[in-house]
Amino acid sequence: MDANKFFETLGIHLDLALEATEALRGDAQKEIPGVSETKEEHSHATVTTIKILDKTGQQIMGRPEGSYITIEAPELAIKDKEIYEEISSIVANKIVELMQDLKIDKDASVLLVGLGNWNATPDALGPEVVENSLVTRHLFHYAPSELTGGLREVSAIAPGVLGITGIETAEIIKGVVEKLSPGLIIAIDALAASNLNRVGTTIQLTNTGINPGSGIGNKRTGINLNTMGTPVIAIGVPTVVHAAVIAFEVFASLTQNNPYLTQQITEEKMQAIVGQILEPFGGQLVVTPKEVDELIFQTAKVIATGINQGLHPRIETGNSSFYLQ
Amino acid sequence: MDANKFFETLGIHLDLALEATEALRGDAQKEIPGVSETKEEHSHATVTTIKILDKTGQQIMGRPEGSYITIEAPELAIKDKEIYEEISSIVANKIVELMQDLKIDKDASVLLVGLGNWNATPDALGPEVVENSLVTRHLFHYAPSELTGGLREVSAIAPGVLGITGIETAEIIKGVVEKLSPGLIIAIDALAASNLNRVGTTIQLTNTGINPGSGIGNKRTGINLNTMGTPVIAIGVPTVVHAAVIAFEVFASLTQNNPYLTQQITEEKMQAIVGQILEPFGGQLVVTPKEVDELIFQTAKVIATGINQGLHPRIETGNSSFYLQ
Amino acid sequence: MDANKFFETLGIHLDLALEATEALRGDAQKEIPGVSETKEEHSHATVTTIKILDKTGQQIMGRPEGSYITIEAPELAIKDKEIYEEISSIVANKIVELMQDLKIDKDASVLLVGLGNWNATPDALGPEVVENSLVTRHLFHYAPSELTGGLREVSAIAPGVLGITGIETAEIIKGVVEKLSPGLIIAIDALAASNLNRVGTTIQLTNTGINPGSGIGNKRTGINLNTMGTPVIAIGVPTVVHAAVIAFEVFASLTQNNPYLTQQITEEKMQAIVGQILEPFGGQLVVTPKEVDELIFQTAKVIATGINQGLHPRIETGNSSFYLQ
Amino acid sequence: MDANKFFETLGIHLDLALEATEALRGDAQKEIPGVSETKEEHSHATVTTIKILDKTGQQIMGRPEGSYITIEAPELAIKDKEIYEEISSIVANKIVELMQDLKIDKDASVLLVGLGNWNATPDALGPEVVENSLVTRHLFHYAPSELTGGLREVSAIAPGVLGITGIETAEIIKGVVEKLSPGLIIAIDALAASNLNRVGTTIQLTNTGINPGSGIGNKRTGINLNTMGTPVIAIGVPTVVHAAVIAFEVFASLTQNNPYLTQQITEEKMQAIVGQILEPFGGQLVVTPKEVDELIFQTAKVIATGINQGLHPRIETGNSSFYLQ
Repeated sequence: MDANKFFETLGIHLDLALEATEALRGDAQKEIPGVSETKEEHSHATVTTIKILDKTGQQIMGRPEGSYITIEAPELAIKDKEIYEEISSIVANKIVELMQDLKIDKDASVLLVGLGNWNATPDALGPEVVENSLVTRHLFHYAPSELTGGLREVSAIAPGVLGITGIETAEIIKGVVEKLSPGLIIAIDALAASNLNRVGTTIQLTNTGINPGSGIGNKRTGINLNTMGTPVIAIGVPTVVHAAVIAFEVFASLTQNNPYLTQQITEEKMQAIVGQILEPFGGQLVVTPKEVDELIFQTAKVIATGINQGLHPRIETGNSSFYLQ
Repeated sequence: MDANKFFETLGIHLDLALEATEALRGDAQKEIPGVSETKEEHSHATVTTIKILDKTGQQIMGRPEGSYITIEAPELAIKDKEIYEEISSIVANKIVELMQDLKIDKDASVLLVGLGNWNATPDALGPEVVENSLVTRHLFHYAPSELTGGLREVSAIAPGVLGITGIETAEIIKGVVEKLSPGLIIAIDALAASNLNRVGTTIQLTNTGINPGSGIGNKRTGINLNTMGTPVIAIGVPTVVHAAVIAFEVFASLTQNNPYLTQQITEEKMQAIVGQILEPFGGQLVVTPKEVDELIFQTAKVIATGINQGLHPRIETGNSSFYLQ
Repeated sequence: MDANKFFETLGIHLDLALEATEALRGDAQKEIPGVSETKEEHSHATVTTIKILDKTGQQIMGRPEGSYITIEAPELAIKDKEIYEEISSIVANKIVELMQDLKIDKDASVLLVGLGNWNATPDALGPEVVENSLVTRHLFHYAPSELTGGLREVSAIAPGVLGITGIETAEIIKGVVEKLSPGLIIAIDALAASNLNRVGTTIQLTNTGINPGSGIGNKRTGINLNTMGTPVIAIGVPTVVHAAVIAFEVFASLTQNNPYLTQQITEEKMQAIVGQILEPFGGQLVVTPKEVDELIFQTAKVIATGINQGLHPRIETGNSSFYLQ
Repeated sequence: MDANKFFETLGIHLDLALEATEALRGDAQKEIPGVSETKEEHSHATVTTIKILDKTGQQIMGRPEGSYITIEAPELAIKDKEIYEEISSIVANKIVELMQDLKIDKDASVLLVGLGNWNATPDALGPEVVENSLVTRHLFHYAPSELTGGLREVSAIAPGVLGITGIETAEIIKGVVEKLSPGLIIAIDALAASNLNRVGTTIQLTNTGINPGSGIGNKRTGINLNTMGTPVIAIGVPTVVHAAVIAFEVFASLTQNNPYLTQQITEEKMQAIVGQILEPFGGQLVVTPKEVDELIFQTAKVIATGINQGLHPRIETGNSSFYLQ
């Protein structure tokens, strides 16, 4: 039985390309046409790079052509300086790789966009990353040049969400992009996963930007090369799961290797049960672990450190705070 | 199949007496010996008062003798001033009732205790209620008596949690109680529910205090007449559910009226499946809706307003802010 | 001796038009050419409307032609619901008046701009007002029309400050304005006063927008009809004073009616003393009362309530929370 | 003219022993009987140790016998990792010295007390330090002993302030102390300085605890060996100044080396002027720099790091986060 289809029927979008390929490849680990996949092992993380290479891959995956890098680091849940530093370095290196793929100029200015709602903890990842990032654009305009040596021109906004601003997030960003003409946008967003143990432990980077329907806030308009006229790297971390995911896991366990139950507990029956359980929530219930504050705080720091290292490689991380504010 | 037993085996405590009676009475609505139950209907809430009357009831219910009042108000999830005001008034009246049951003196001083961790949003209900409550004890000591007319002597603490203080919460409270000798303690805490749609919409008040194992933080020592030497009213709102609850709801739906599946999907099988799904989380995963910030903020205001009205009946609610700070 | 000149020499900008006229008119209360002034008394506030009528007035006042309304309400420092409601209503009425002056269309859409730094309490007034305002633009686009009856189309942004975004605030706003084409901008900002007891008790509204050099953050570019292509109403509250102001008050007291000391303590001597005292702070020290958190919180609520009433006159204030979020 | 006397008449308490000695010794740098003073120079700080040796010193200084160590580090206002690390190390070493003076046992348990109001930024230093400190007491009770190797037993509370709890802070602490019987209390508090440039750049440590009247919140009861039955080290940082201080600095500058003005501008006249300027504030106005949020955040980190190093010398600072919750 197919997780992708199950969630689709419930109107749930899978934000991670890795989850989409896993669902498609199934237990048989079959190849997906038009899609390549490579893996690297690090001390505390596995990095999977999925490339959607052509129209065929694009159609099967339901995602635009491009690279999707997933860092899986279950140990991010443990507080340990060494683990944090390794993951930050991987984030930094992967940003550099994606920038090379996109042929971003070495001195190109970058606009960081922290998506999400700072008043809703599980959706506050983007604004929190931006808060911890090294912003330098004003130094180039107002400070002596010795201060800006080794730095790239970086600016940052946290545009808020529709319910707070009354404005489509993409409109605000587009307005700012037209004023600044950055060479690259890096958008950071909280995602929904279809697996409980990805929450706070998986980081996805992609050079295809953010596409409609993705993220906690369900963006209606994409934030990508198409809509912005500027390449967009998107960095996302799952911070929530749909409650239906838990029901699906029960279902999948029950029916696995049990032809009789597979026959009895049809997909339709499961949809009906899930629909009924979620009925008091308008059919949609998105949950987050009770430790969500800590989780957002720590992953935001890891990602911000990665961004600072990736964008300003010539400064020491330890001193980055000197430039903050 | 028995929800109580199912959760017990998983080491999950049911915080709401109402859920415990529902599980015990079952579909057949059978009487529970030593336990009485009455219901009142209000415009926006149903109030159920469960009284555990004797040793028999105590043993069956796994809770001390006393009153357990549950306010169910699904509309609390809607933002509406009228609904908030009705629920606040019910809270106020029920506090007065419980104080009469406990024969608390009309002028007795009250110590509010906001249990929980202010740094973890789903566990911050107690501290947030205390923040919004009308504290007056210092006025009695330092201000002219015309300021304190119509007021009761109320003090408040938010003792934090073991992980932050290194001290058992009950020890801190006991230390303060010995200095202040209040006539009554009102302890406010976030609870875990076994039903998703109770989160943020159900309020439980009891004159039995807080007993070991209850609440999000899993108190190791009770906060009750026994441990404090002072009567304790506990007010709780479910803000989280165990992920296992969602699995149980699927299970219950599947087996209901289906003797065949009931036979196939044994309790042991379900326990195993749940254990396996939760294995990456050490067997325990507690979740909260992604709107948790809003939910804590609003229910804390409703409860604080109820406490202020219940304890200082002679002042107008609208002006209570005059006395704050 | 002239406060205006004293502060000018120290590079300090007076944000309140009322303070500028008071300094110019002096004890003799002389008329200022090209400037009219009227006063209204309310139960808890005095409202002064200064109109700069022509080029002469503009030059003397160092401010553009237009209306400057100052609400002085010393009792705002007291917590009292009745006082808050009166001041909110005055704010609402004055917004309506200024909109009529500007001939803003009855159904014109409004963009609220909360200026300032949400991470620096004394500069967080603007973002805090925006947080408490009723944003409706998305309802017009996505909700059934019965929801929007009696509402005006309002959107809101808090663009941050240069040190956080790396971007001139005016650039961000201009980018958004070009996307939205609002009929009016209302910009809210924290101001610097030259009188200690204005902090948190005075509200200035003007239809001339925000002009370079004003506000805590010392905007480099104006936010006004000129730069935005849209009329701008600015609402400001002093939340800080320059430390030099306190020195000036000592000086003014010493020399008042004392010709001998006036001769001895020359302006140059005072400038030197102030310069020396402030030398460890790079010549500039801006201070705020230690109760600044409370002050920002309360005045932001009063102004937001005034904006909500002024812009959506047909809804009840009490129910405005229904539309929030 | 005497700063001590000037402030005393205005009811202003000087929290720093260093300021008291400076005022007493005057320009002539005369010796104070019963008081010794030594200075050390560090790269980024000057450390002055004042010892009040006997009853004579005690009476002149208006402070109990004991050590008062003042770290003056104007560069704390600059963000620089190296400076922070040096100051943290000095704090750690001075805590160790004071503990040796007090003959605190090598394995004695320590109770950290973060004094002040977490809702008022300038008064939030104490709670903020406690938030960043390494609390371990619960590990000794509930964790395997290999986890606690190299650690001391440390617990922590932030008791709030009278206006929030209705309870004298000393009562709450005393209640907890009686339950825990710690070997030492370390109390952290925000102070008032009589010199603008001490704010956020000076740290005072003393083994005499906290004495009535000191601190922003004007404690009514001391927190010291006398009241607690346990030795108390107090750590304080000035975060506010009385507005009267600025007036005094003007006064002192004007009259310095000017016998004529000294005669004209009498102390009485200055008192009257200051009284008149501060009249709208009930005679008392306490101010803080507008950068107060940043200042509290950074000094709290420096002090917490110093405490962690001083109390748990055998763990690496970098890994201290491992033990934090």
